[in-house]
Order: sequence, then structure tokens, then C-alpha cells
Amino acid sequence: MNNDPSTQTTNEVTHSNHSDVLAELAQLLDPASIITDPDITSSYSSDHATGVAVGKPLAVLLPKSTEDVSRSLAIAHRYNIPVVPRGAGSGLAGGANAIDGSLVMSLARMTKILEIDPINFIATVEPGVINKDLKAEAERFGLSYPPDPASFSFSTVGGNIATNAGGLCCVKYGVTRDYVLGLEVVMADGTVMNLGRRTKKGVAGLDLTGLIVGSEGTLAVITKATLRLVRQLPKPAGTLVAVFNSLTSLGEAITEISKSCTPSLLEVMDDTTLAAVEKMTPMGLHSSIAAMLIAQSDLDGEAGVAELDLIKSIAERSQATEVYLATDTYEADALLQARRLALRALERLGKVLLDDVCVPTSRIAEMMAEISAVAERYSLTIGTFGHGGDGNLHPTIVMPTDDAGKAAAEHAFSEMVGRAIALGGTISGEHGVGLLKKRYQDIELGDHQVKLIAEVKRAFDPNWILNPTKLVDQ
Amino acid sequence: MNNDPSTQTTNEVTHSNHSDVLAELAQLLDPASIITDPDITSSYSSDHATGVAVGKPLAVLLPKSTEDVSRSLAIAHRYNIPVVPRGAGSGLAGGANAIDGSLVMSLARMTKILEIDPINFIATVEPGVINKDLKAEAERFGLSYPPDPASFSFSTVGGNIATNAGGLCCVKYGVTRDYVLGLEVVMADGTVMNLGRRTKKGVAGLDLTGLIVGSEGTLAVITKATLRLVRQLPKPAGTLVAVFNSLTSLGEAITEISKSCTPSLLEVMDDTTLAAVEKMTPMGLHSSIAAMLIAQSDLDGEAGVAELDLIKSIAERSQATEVYLATDTYEADALLQARRLALRALERLGKVLLDDVCVPTSRIAEMMAEISAVAERYSLTIGTFGHGGDGNLHPTIVMPTDDAGKAAAEHAFSEMVGRAIALGGTISGEHGVGLLKKRYQDIELGDHQVKLIAEVKRAFDPNWILNPTKLVDQ
Repeated sequence: MNNDPSTQTTNEVTHSNHSDVLAELAQLLDPASIITDPDITSSYSSDHATGVAVGKPLAVLLPKSTEDVSRSLAIAHRYNIPVVPRGAGSGLAGGANAIDGSLVMSLARMTKILEIDPINFIATVEPGVINKDLKAEAERFGLSYPPDPASFSFSTVGGNIATNAGGLCCVKYGVTRDYVLGLEVVMADGTVMNLGRRTKKGVAGLDLTGLIVGSEGTLAVITKATLRLVRQLPKPAGTLVAVFNSLTSLGEAITEISKSCTPSLLEVMDDTTLAAVEKMTPMGLHSSIAAMLIAQSDLDGEAGVAELDLIKSIAERSQATEVYLATDTYEADALLQARRLALRALERLGKVLLDDVCVPTSRIAEMMAEISAVAERYSLTIGTFGHGGDGNLHPTIVMPTDDAGKAAAEHAFSEMVGRAIALGGTISGEHGVGLLKKRYQDIELGDHQVKLIAEVKRAFDPNWILNPTKLVDQ
Repeated sequence: MNNDPSTQTTNEVTHSNHSDVLAELAQLLDPASIITDPDITSSYSSDHATGVAVGKPLAVLLPKSTEDVSRSLAIAHRYNIPVVPRGAGSGLAGGANAIDGSLVMSLARMTKILEIDPINFIATVEPGVINKDLKAEAERFGLSYPPDPASFSFSTVGGNIATNAGGLCCVKYGVTRDYVLGLEVVMADGTVMNLGRRTKKGVAGLDLTGLIVGSEGTLAVITKATLRLVRQLPKPAGTLVAVFNSLTSLGEAITEISKSCTPSLLEVMDDTTLAAVEKMTPMGLHSSIAAMLIAQSDLDGEAGVAELDLIKSIAERSQATEVYLATDTYEADALLQARRLALRALERLGKVLLDDVCVPTSRIAEMMAEISAVAERYSLTIGTFGHGGDGNLHPTIVMPTDDAGKAAAEHAFSEMVGRAIALGGTISGEHGVGLLKKRYQDIELGDHQVKLIAEVKRAFDPNWILNPTKLVDQ
């Protein structure tokens, strides 16, 4: 990774006035909103990424309002101090990791759901609202907020927007970006700006709202979001599990299912992942299978049954060795449980390095075969699971503890990302770039585009104080 | 509008080397790709907008390849000559209007459908492909390209992307932006760049693809688009027409339908529009009704019938004075015909000035009432029709021929746009800003955001040569 903390590039700003900065902040924010105790700031200094730099912040700020954010940024801008915005810190690419001498700005205390408009299907929320809480509030009005990253029970909506989070529902319901109508943001210099709209359509100006989504805190700080809700999503009519003894068969099934229908969930797990899950929670998973496919349909009544039947027949035609269909909710949950436990099961085997490649769905089998080959070549344990319907895979390297093994893991990681690009894919389907993927991004996007991204960032943040060192270099 | 051609602001660039520019272009492009005959260039000098400035171009370029575009832009960039990209010129906001001394760059000759990938549901096309032709080609593979602006039979996909075109399908299938995965663009200086992806998800870099969509040729010239296709859209199960004798009842019906189901079409027409249609093509439309609602469902079989029944019962509960349901295709087409003829019928009454406001669906009745009040106050004929399900209305002023009437029409236009903003709406739902809406955009977005948009444009186009004077000022 070359992301050893000891070699971290510090942001080239003047840090001589740290005490002045803190004094000015203390005049504006309530004392509980400024944390400088290193025992506490350290818990705000990293996200869930492995093997990337973690800096020591000057302070952690816990603003309670847009005004707090605006005043704090105005000071940081004046003193040229880097600011690292963060939600719950559940990110997986180091995008929320502190930078030495920075102000970490946690939006976790801005947790108001300001409005649910059940007529126009709109929610307006502060950025610290937990995804799960918004889902629950929407449901009280018979509505749904679909985006469902695996972290939905603890990640914030603001963080989800900043990373354009994906999840299990994407195969049918799209990503976070598809639900963001408008944003209130605070610019690097403290200016508050309202972007986007409340209407279903709108083409005034440039789509700056869409540009902020997925920008990982590098363009502005999100202080409010106007979100699109939908009618309450139906409960899945049932869950289907199909096992395959070859990746080619699995790939054929995914391709054919994707062409024929739109399941509300279409997840995959490979043999290594299944073995890890079985080891942690014995559920009778065969040790000889190459991969498992899990599908759900949330179509109403007969239509849901018909869709699952169609998926079943496709799986059988694609030489699934076993197909099991559960229409009972309890049983269906148990089947999905194996997928939900995937990462935790692999983490039991050691520290993990989680990847997030995405390829065209027709290339999934090839990508999974490449991953297996890489694992064999470097004698590594790599469990792969992910969102089959989107072509979004999470090959997860169980990190060896010896230096040679660690080096092998880094090579393997690079090779997998490189293979994804070669297969017409991308370095990141949903986790983001942060620190973890920055150098791979340069390969995917090319120098011209990376330079353009830097120019766009400069248009938003001329002093380059917002999450510098992440996503793109100055 | 204050957009009298005689007061047009010319772009502040050096025009002293026009003959050198033409000589250099002549060395690179085939002679048929450069038009300087003013009788011909004039036909490439405007789009379908009314009352906005039309300049005299230096030449019209008809590039046949990305390389042609790149070489031409490199020259324009070097000589600081404005370039106005255009598709079919079907725009409605003056975005494609020529600027004095500019190079108009028509992409209309780049008409190749390069690929339909029926496995991953992707089309790759050149920008000059007519929307209808892409739809037809997709259908040969059992797929659909949903975006359907009213101009779909003659507008280009590139133009649709540049304006983020809407249409009748948006209420269920979204806008052009929802179908653009990636773009090949040529930057102002001639650099060719590939933005976006071929995968279903992807978060590398900033979403520059989304930023280009709707940017009206101000950021880069689109030379190739990677588009998302969907399984072939079903034919509508039927068409429902409901008439109302009050706008309040109409608004209630639209709100309730939007909450309860997702018709594949939900259009409205007011009394003035209906009278104009009846005058042109007598079809027995009542003269006493306030508005007509037209709905379609494209759900399969029973589900489609059930959805239309639901819409019927909502319309009846909302005091529709008459509800008519046609399941026969021929009859259904006839019902939709009145809507399709709306603009043409109003154009028979005189030159028209077409607006494109969009409000939250719950505010449609209020917006339509405001439009009626404005028409009365200024003694104008204003026919309103549009996409009820999106809250996107096209109040269409039949322009008086006398000066006082023209001035009244301008005031009326301003007031309608202002009312849309006041109702939580936007100045443009789908037509774009171009020249027509630039000053209203400033009201909606505010000075800070307009300045930021200018900075973002500068990041793409530092010499400000791409469609200057449109969308945003330097």
C-alpha cells in the first residue's frame, strides 16, 4: 500500500498558530464541541480501513448546527488548517482518517430528521442521522429510504452521501446518489450554500449536488440533505439459494438472471468465504462447492413467486448443483445470514484487507477466477463475497502476519485491482477512494482526468483545506 | 427578455485572426466539414427558443470523428474563438444559438451506434445518433432506451445529454441523466478524456460524467456516450383520461395518484390548451372543463388493469367530472393525441413563448391557478400542458404582435418563473437554461452558487471558449 503511517505526507500548511486556532474556536463553539484530549481524539482519527495512514489531529470538533460548521470552517480557512469531515467513521478506504494537525469535524451530533413530507416523498435530514433511523422514520409514514450499506445500522446519512454508499438493494433500487435531491453544504471558507432542488426534475445550473455525492469530504461539508423517498418497499416474497461447483456456471446464472428479471437482492459468496462462515457458524454448508448465489424477489404475491421460479430455472439450467427456495421469512433470513456473516467470519481468520472492485456482470466469473488464481499464486487466503447483480465484489485478503506475507498481500491487492480495470471494471464499486485506492484511481482515470478533478476541487476549495491527501493530490 | 439580437453581448475574444483560423481548420478537416456560406450557416445558428439572441458564426464545423473535434477545438483554443456545440438544434432555451464570430460545431454527422451489448445492457453511441434510432436499435435486441423528450424523433442523444432532457416517461423511468454511465468528451483545449464507467456502480474520482450531463456544452464536447439500457418496456396496458372542472380537484388527483402508484405517463392540459387543440382538430373536447389528466400504466396484464382502476377511482374521488378508460391501443393513442398536439395547436394561435417550470407535485394546482391569474392580469392567452406526475409544466404564452402586448408577455413570463421558485420549484424542469433562463437562474441559485458554477466551468475551460454567454457568465 505504501501507506505506512510513518511515511505519511503531511499537508503543507502553516501549523504555527494552532493555539490561536483553538482559542478562536473556543470563543465560537460550546466547550463540549471541541475535544483535544488525545485519548478521545484518537477514537475519531480513523475509519475501518486497513493499512492506511492515520494522523494525529489538532482537535476534534463536534458541531451542532450549520452555523457551528460555518464558523469553524471560516477559522480553518483563515489559518489554512486541514479539516477532515466524518460521519460515523464506518468508511472502508481511509477517507475519514485524521491528518496530522487537522481539525477532525464529526457531524455525528447533527442528528435531526427535520422533515418527512409524505405528499411529495421527501425527507430533509441533518448529516449525522443514522441510516437506520431515517429508514424507521420513513416507515412510520408508509415510505422507504432504500440505500442500505452493510453499515446501515450505524453509518450516517451524511457519510453515505459523501461516499455514495451502495449496499444490497442497489441491484434493484440503485445507490445513494439516486436518492439525493438537494444538499445544504458549507464551503471551505464558511459560506453556506443550498444546492439542488425539492422537485422531481430540475436542470438549473450545473449538477453540483451530484458532484458532492461521492466526493468524500473534499469539496464541501454536508450540513443538510433533501432526500427522495419511495413507497414502502415490500418484504421479499422469498429467498433462493443456489450452489455451483464452477465459477463459470455461477457467472452464466448471474448474467442470465440479470438479463431476465430484477431481483431485489442478488449476492454471491465463494468457497473460501463459505468455509469461513461454516467454521464460525456451522450451518451445513458443503465444503466442495465453488460458489453460492442468494437471490430475493420483492414483487407482490404471484409475481414474486414467478420471479423466484424463473431464477430457480435459470440456476438449474446453469448447472447449479443444488437450488433451495424458502418462502418462509424465518427460513429465508437464515439463508441470508450466511451472507451477512461473510466479513465477520473472514475477520476471525486474521486481520483483513477488504477490496471493492466492480466489473460488468458478464465478467464476474472471470474476475472471481482471477482472484482465485491470485490467492494461489501468493499463497493467500482470499474470500470473495459481494453484490453479484451489480458485478461488485469484495475480495477480502486475510493478512499474513509475517513481512513476506504482508508484501505478498499488497501485490495481490494491486493485481486484483488491475485485473478489474482490465476487465472493463473499476477500482471501487461503493467503498470509495480515500487513501486506500488513490494510486489505483490514477491508473483507472488517467493523468488528465486526475488533474481535472484537482482543478474542480480547487474551484470549491482554493486553499485545499478540505480533506487534503484524500481522493486526489494537490 | 432583454434578449433582442441587436443588444447581444459579443464574447470578448480576439477576432482578428478569423482567416487564419479558417485556414488552419481547412488543413485538418475535409472541405465538406467546414461551412462558411451565410445562407447555410444561418440554418445552424439557432435552436427552437423564442426571443433570445442569435449571433452570426464565423463558420459551421461538421466533424466526423473525435479526432476532428479534438483538432478543431485545439485550434479554437489557441485562437480564443468561441465554440458552440450543437446536436439537432431542437433545444428550447437558446443553448445552441450561435455567438457572433463563433465556430458552431454540429455533432449531427457523428451518427454511429458503435455497440449494443445485450448482456450488460449497454449502448455506446456517437453524439449525433437520433434518439429514435437508438430506441429502434435497442429494440432489435429486446431492450429499451427510455428517455423520450417530445423531440425524440429528431433530437440527438448528444443534445439530450447536454440538456439532461426529460420527456413523458420521466414519471416512471427518470431523465436522461439516469441512463448515462460514461462519456468520451473533448476538452476545450482538444484533450480527449474518458469519463465514467461501464459498470453498474462505481465511485472512482468525482462524478464528472454526471456534471457534464445538463451542462449545455459549456464544459466539454461530448463525442461518445456509454448508455444504460433496460429490458424492453412493455406497451401500456391502457390509457385513462379524466376531466376536472377545478384545478384544485386536478391537483388532488395528481397528488393522490403519485402517492399511490407509478403510472408510466401522467400528463396534464389546461382549458386554454384543450380549446386550442379542439380548434385545430375537433375531437369533441368539452369547452367547460378546467383541465384534463391523461394516465397510462405499463404494468403487465392484471397489474396494469388494476393500476388503471386505482387511478380511475382516485380521479372519481377527486371529483373528476368524467373518466374514460381505453384499453384498445387505437383508442388509447387517440386520447394521447390531444396531448401530443398541444404545442402545435397553441402555435397555430401565434408565435409562442414556451416556459418550463417545475414544482413539487403537491403544488401543481396552485401553480396552474397562478398561471391563469397571470394570463388574466396581462390579458394574454397562456396554454398550460406538461408532465403532471413530475410537477413539470409548460405554460405557453401566445405572443401578442403589438409592443405593449410583447412587454406584457415578458412580465408574465417573469412572474410565472418567480411563482415557481416561490412554490419551492425550479425555473427549468427539463429544457435548460441557455440564454432564455440565465437571469432567472441567478434568482433561483443565488450569487454564491452562480459564482461557484463559473469557477467549475473555468476548471474545465480556462479560456472560456465553450458556449460562452450560455448558462453562466464569466
